[in-house]
Amino acid sequence: MARKNKSVKKTGGGLKFWGRHAIGAALDNPRRVIKKISGTREALATLDLPEGLPVVYCDVADLGRMVARDAPHQGMVADVDPLPDIWLGDLLDDASAAGRPILLLDQVTDPHNVGAILRSAAAFDAAAIVTQDRHAPPESGTLAKSASGALEIVPWIRVVNLSRALDEIAQAGYWRIGLDGEGTELLSQAMGNSKLALVMGAEGEGLRQNVAAHCDVISRLPMSARMESLNVSNAAAIALYAEYTRTKD
Amino acid sequence: MARKNKSVKKTGGGLKFWGRHAIGAALDNPRRVIKKISGTREALATLDLPEGLPVVYCDVADLGRMVARDAPHQGMVADVDPLPDIWLGDLLDDASAAGRPILLLDQVTDPHNVGAILRSAAAFDAAAIVTQDRHAPPESGTLAKSASGALEIVPWIRVVNLSRALDEIAQAGYWRIGLDGEGTELLSQAMGNSKLALVMGAEGEGLRQNVAAHCDVISRLPMSARMESLNVSNAAAIALYAEYTRTKD
Repeated sequence: MARKNKSVKKTGGGLKFWGRHAIGAALDNPRRVIKKISGTREALATLDLPEGLPVVYCDVADLGRMVARDAPHQGMVADVDPLPDIWLGDLLDDASAAGRPILLLDQVTDPHNVGAILRSAAAFDAAAIVTQDRHAPPESGTLAKSASGALEIVPWIRVVNLSRALDEIAQAGYWRIGLDGEGTELLSQAMGNSKLALVMGAEGEGLRQNVAAHCDVISRLPMSARMESLNVSNAAAIALYAEYTRTKD
Repeated sequence: MARKNKSVKKTGGGLKFWGRHAIGAALDNPRRVIKKISGTREALATLDLPEGLPVVYCDVADLGRMVARDAPHQGMVADVDPLPDIWLGDLLDDASAAGRPILLLDQVTDPHNVGAILRSAAAFDAAAIVTQDRHAPPESGTLAKSASGALEIVPWIRVVNLSRALDEIAQAGYWRIGLDGEGTELLSQAMGNSKLALVMGAEGEGLRQNVAAHCDVISRLPMSARMESLNVSNAAAIALYAEYTRTKD
């Protein structure tokens, strides 16, 4: 899939990843620029470090000062650049994405949730996730840790306007299912035989009206009357699992 | 279900809940002792406050000082007591629990995960969650917020020893399925016609050997070879959803 470069935004301390899975996956990703790795001798010995990568050996207290308090760094911290942009048009042209669902997130801003969603998207073979630039978290150490390596695996497409992206996705032959507690059909009934685009709304707010209007159907998960809704990453995991088992069975 | 009192552990600042769903559900729960509610006039006007409950009107800055930094208090904070203990034997004797799954958590310590799991357990009508006292988080504002009210709905049983609890559960006629990436069968195949006990392991560690040995079968979720595992609350949500749709269909 072709990818264009973008100028990397410089932030104060730069982008730092921590934890075995996040850093191991970053090392395996040819698209990820790693500028430096810091860690204990013991922890770094478990990694396959490429030649030429600057390595700083340090102790646990040093590492603790590099990341947020209580961040479970597991003895390693990496200074990295954000990934280059990916374009929706390229994904829709990509043969390897065929038959795999696309997951769109409308205003899901919590980095733990987006990280967990990336992890489920990798586990259930989604083609990509799509977020709207102004209403999504940036790449971060917290997000990468929650994604447990999936940030390096699942293409993450940032668009300016989610409704316009949904139009483009429909033209490419996808059936767009919005997931919302107010949905008229059960998700299992709404899943057709076409390629699937799943649209998840923000917690509390649900899908914005204009985004819902760009879906082919709004569906809901069956659930007890005792609860209104699930955590958004849990709802996404269920929807991706349902699609994965439906297409593999 | 009979419940015995326990002496409430006194902690420094006591137990504080925040946010609309957590506090609204606490007010609806006759078992929950609420000692005081603080909040803005606007936010508290949305609640149905019982007579005699001490109420302190204050501004957003005061509320911010009562809870962790960035805690989304939505204009309200409540001082509460932890819930009284619930006993496994009482649950197993309880006719209203019949036909509903029990979810056991082995060393799942993150309060966000346990909160999200309670939320899914309520949504998919689980009879209870069971944790081992030494390896589970206490009730907390963070956990109650993540549970979005479900902490007041789903019985949470704390046991001294999870393996012994699994013995007791088997004697009551439950089929015990452990969920682990190393499972020999797919979850959907492992689900029989009996009452179901689902056992989830900690992230990273998975199920402890002794706990796994007390399951009737270890099963796994079908997933891409690209990922090793899911976030534990996501895996629990999928398992509970699978059971809910299996028994309701």
